[in-house]
Amino acid sequence: MNEKYMKRAIELAKMGRGRTNPNPMVGAVIVKNDKIIGEGFHEYYGGLHAERNAIKNCTENPNGADIYVTLEPCCHYGKTPPCSEAVIESGIKRVFIGSNDPNPKVSGGGIKQLKENGIEVVTNVLKDECDSINEIFFHYITNNTPFVIAKYASTADGKIATKSGDSKWISNDESRLIVHKIRNAVSAILVGIDTVISDNPMLNCRIENGTNPVRIICDSSLRIPLNCNIVNTADEIPTIIAYSQENGEISDKKALLSEKGIEFIYAPDKNGKVDLKELMKKLGKRKIDSVLIEGGSEILSAALFSGIVNKLEVFIAPKIFGGSNAKTSVGGNGIQNAADSLKLKLNNVAELHGDVLLEYDVLNDCENNSDIGNKEAEI
Amino acid sequence: MNEKYMKRAIELAKMGRGRTNPNPMVGAVIVKNDKIIGEGFHEYYGGLHAERNAIKNCTENPNGADIYVTLEPCCHYGKTPPCSEAVIESGIKRVFIGSNDPNPKVSGGGIKQLKENGIEVVTNVLKDECDSINEIFFHYITNNTPFVIAKYASTADGKIATKSGDSKWISNDESRLIVHKIRNAVSAILVGIDTVISDNPMLNCRIENGTNPVRIICDSSLRIPLNCNIVNTADEIPTIIAYSQENGEISDKKALLSEKGIEFIYAPDKNGKVDLKELMKKLGKRKIDSVLIEGGSEILSAALFSGIVNKLEVFIAPKIFGGSNAKTSVGGNGIQNAADSLKLKLNNVAELHGDVLLEYDVLNDCENNSDIGNKEAEI
Repeated sequence: MNEKYMKRAIELAKMGRGRTNPNPMVGAVIVKNDKIIGEGFHEYYGGLHAERNAIKNCTENPNGADIYVTLEPCCHYGKTPPCSEAVIESGIKRVFIGSNDPNPKVSGGGIKQLKENGIEVVTNVLKDECDSINEIFFHYITNNTPFVIAKYASTADGKIATKSGDSKWISNDESRLIVHKIRNAVSAILVGIDTVISDNPMLNCRIENGTNPVRIICDSSLRIPLNCNIVNTADEIPTIIAYSQENGEISDKKALLSEKGIEFIYAPDKNGKVDLKELMKKLGKRKIDSVLIEGGSEILSAALFSGIVNKLEVFIAPKIFGGSNAKTSVGGNGIQNAADSLKLKLNNVAELHGDVLLEYDVLNDCENNSDIGNKEAEI
Repeated sequence: MNEKYMKRAIELAKMGRGRTNPNPMVGAVIVKNDKIIGEGFHEYYGGLHAERNAIKNCTENPNGADIYVTLEPCCHYGKTPPCSEAVIESGIKRVFIGSNDPNPKVSGGGIKQLKENGIEVVTNVLKDECDSINEIFFHYITNNTPFVIAKYASTADGKIATKSGDSKWISNDESRLIVHKIRNAVSAILVGIDTVISDNPMLNCRIENGTNPVRIICDSSLRIPLNCNIVNTADEIPTIIAYSQENGEISDKKALLSEKGIEFIYAPDKNGKVDLKELMKKLGKRKIDSVLIEGGSEILSAALFSGIVNKLEVFIAPKIFGGSNAKTSVGGNGIQNAADSLKLKLNNVAELHGDVLLEYDVLNDCENNSDIGNKEAEI
């Protein structure tokens, strides 16, 4: 066993980023006589799995070889036949596995089948690294709701705009490149209607060979302008409006927007606002495994305090706007007592040419938060 | 020449932190036959200089030895006779110097005197490291005003209190220890009267063998409560109130506060508020070489936009308070256009068990800022 081959398999896996959702990223390397004879990865949703690609790409007969694969080979019929069978048929004699299949229906099944066919199986090879590339998949397969990342860029004094509402620009090019990389990796991007009205954004992925996420606008009563960039490009980039009120006027506007190619999800809470938890369930059913929430201030508050956010990416620019009335990153009602704050866990700090990126896990197990969440989830 | 001896001299210099102000921290190491025979540092304001302490501590005759000293030996009569003379008398043959004396009156004079006496002089040895320990001294000696550090601790969403004003606690123990270390290193600490009224702080230095900075309260019309912690301890810890209004009532209160040991600086601007630039000049005349401004939100805004702040220390806690009305770190009027933001330069990022410390230089050369400063410096 040589970890360098698993490291290579991880590199390969990452090449599928943004194209495999809601399936995992997987990489595989086939080794014979301490030489790589085949490599492959899961390239896009519906395409061949990593193991089959690696076998297909072999420059020698894989009979008797080792395979390093970042995720337990599947043993069930999905879009493609099970990989465990392909491995058995190929004559491979040893399988080194990184992550276990988190799908409760099949977990361990692939390994069992391999062993029953006389193949030696070694598990947990660079497990943490292998797990980390598929946090979206692991969350989605166990919860059936999207993995949610919230993101904002603020000044060092926590502002996302000046007192007059000017927000161009806060973060630098390097920070914005990272945001586009995240957009490339997720299935959907979500903003509140106020952001659409004030910034008229495109919300597309502007990196080479990037894929555009589905755009989701939270817009209770369909206030979206008919001539905004989002509406004008809805025939090119899938766009969903989540709304929560219905009347004659709204029906008429819905019809107009439908003609432009916009889809709708109705998810009202008891106050006539969009119910974000319900929305996430409905997005999960549509195979949306991941959502990036980019603001503004009200939707970030609602999302964070409703408990749907898994990860928070905070970009801090080396600037001060000042202003006791300038808008901050997380608005809404806010908490009363400091002890009841929403708790975060710092995972990573990165310096980006003066900007700083703070990456947090959102700890959603705090009871107090759910109280706030109920009040806050009223956008 | 061996840099390890200068590194040791730097270590020694730092042992004087908090006790030498407004003089520099200086360390010296005397080396003979590649062996340290004497060490010393400037221990406290008015005490022997580093070179004299090192010579005094020699275990062998320093005749023919080398000396490593972090700052150019002084050549003028101050509180103690010039060090250049002591070095010459000792018979030391080579002098390795880190920083040049920034005092325009004497810069280069010590070196010249040494050379005239046949001593070999090498300058700029680990200059950057040597300079960095004395940024306070270098600023003060060239500007005659204190080096000003501003500090705040906010949540990841930029709040310094919840909507109800609760701020206990935001940062963790490790962050607060760093604040106390800064308090130990500076001559004075400054807060606005609102912070005194809402938090009733002590503003002392709570680390072992720490020195308490002078406490300065910006309090235009003497609203300070007579029974607060600051007033009650004014006989133990030097305390100055900077004020800007005068009338009969204020005179009466001033008399009461004077009895408790409080001193006063009158520094009005044209709007009857405290003029921070003027205050800094007056503090400089009192030999206060450094001030730590700890808030609140209004004084930080006034200070930052008036151009008096050199360095900004931002502690960010892994918490979200939310709330569009919750107080943020820098309040005041704030700027109108994002392009006119107060610019910072990121110097250092430190992880502190979940908290993050962002250390910035404040770039005060932006023309727009001075406009805001005029408006903002009205506390």
